[in-house]
Amino acid sequence: MDMISKSNAKFLKSLQIKKYRKEHSCFLVEGTKSVNELLTSKFEVVTLYATKLFLDEFAELWRGVDVEEVTSKELGSVSFFQTNNSVLAVVKTSDVKFKLPPENKLSIALDSVNDPGNLGTIIRVADWYGITDIYCSLDTVDVYNPKVISSTKGSINRVNVHYCDLFETLNTAGLTIYGAFLEGNNIHDLKLKGDLEGILLMGSEAHGVSSELEVLVTSKVTIPSFGDTESLNVSIATAIICDNLKRLSV
Amino acid sequence: MDMISKSNAKFLKSLQIKKYRKEHSCFLVEGTKSVNELLTSKFEVVTLYATKLFLDEFAELWRGVDVEEVTSKELGSVSFFQTNNSVLAVVKTSDVKFKLPPENKLSIALDSVNDPGNLGTIIRVADWYGITDIYCSLDTVDVYNPKVISSTKGSINRVNVHYCDLFETLNTAGLTIYGAFLEGNNIHDLKLKGDLEGILLMGSEAHGVSSELEVLVTSKVTIPSFGDTESLNVSIATAIICDNLKRLSV
Repeated sequence: MDMISKSNAKFLKSLQIKKYRKEHSCFLVEGTKSVNELLTSKFEVVTLYATKLFLDEFAELWRGVDVEEVTSKELGSVSFFQTNNSVLAVVKTSDVKFKLPPENKLSIALDSVNDPGNLGTIIRVADWYGITDIYCSLDTVDVYNPKVISSTKGSINRVNVHYCDLFETLNTAGLTIYGAFLEGNNIHDLKLKGDLEGILLMGSEAHGVSSELEVLVTSKVTIPSFGDTESLNVSIATAIICDNLKRLSV
Repeated sequence: MDMISKSNAKFLKSLQIKKYRKEHSCFLVEGTKSVNELLTSKFEVVTLYATKLFLDEFAELWRGVDVEEVTSKELGSVSFFQTNNSVLAVVKTSDVKFKLPPENKLSIALDSVNDPGNLGTIIRVADWYGITDIYCSLDTVDVYNPKVISSTKGSINRVNVHYCDLFETLNTAGLTIYGAFLEGNNIHDLKLKGDLEGILLMGSEAHGVSSELEVLVTSKVTIPSFGDTESLNVSIATAIICDNLKRLSV
């Protein structure tokens, strides 16, 4: 039984902070389900801190990986999620090669989404709807934040998240840009001309799409409301619009 | 300038725990937007802890309420959300009078939803779609949990959340019961017979709808997937199904 050395514990804790994730080109993935999906993905695992229980049960998955056996108590003390009692992986960040939004399919663009749970859930939604590329403004929360990673429930392995100047990217793409606005067309009644292609632009919860980007929107849509609340969570709104666009395109 | 006494601070902290919320019939609401919606709702505010800034800006809203002026630092030290720097309200829990799911409209039933963010978001979704009643199994997370309240973004003021024996309630209601299952009918192609009425039953993220309740489902539906992930977050799935049912009913 190894112990987690003080310097390793310090290193693991540092990866909860964006600055150190960048410095070390590493991030954390926690919990059985997420780590198991990761072990069969394109990502490179640097070290796996795992309990005996995990190592026994999933022996075929971690073969060839640098492993440190730890107690669940030790694991809890270095994990972002104190409830983590199975496994923690230190993983190499993968430099997503920037490419312009693809033609002939739908992509998502996020303007200043700050909540890590929302970004993670949107990545999971994108994966569900077969969307492979998400474009984030530079001030959007870091995709390697532990809460983002956890909320993706493994979808981080299949969706490319690009950080870029959104105005330039959207302006250069030359595709239909959908955006949610109160005065937009009812998404239930929308008609698509031809196949579904373009970019769904979603704004921050507090401020919506910025006026700088609004001018680039070519198709304003709205989700019809039947009650008294004035807004939906941004990940919920993204999912509903994706669902409608996919429904309209088949 | 008042100070928060030690006993008051202890009382406020205790309301983060379900047992003490029940004992005192009180819960916490934090942050400007949520508290302002609350102040114009049916809920009875016991005490408002607020900064001078809040009190000056929203003087017309808190008239007649017992107010303690505090610094934002003091507020942070007693709040559930350490980022809360404006206002915290102690509010009387309201005993939702149990009634069977209404006819001629849609209600939601939740089987063992444990994540407070999910319950809060589902309450917000319900409010958006004009759904007034949510039925929760007794082991569903407490609606007065601070994270639930925060995620509802004020919708708690307009949606009734009932805790009950779900089997008995659904079995007695005699309404159509929609449930999400992989082998269900594609929600995009569903046809409604007559107006939308019934109950949308959603299960826990980990286990879905329990087999005990599954036998009561009269309309199994599925959200079509276009990618490789195997599941959606329960609040996302609830929103997408509500959106489709509402679309089909107009």
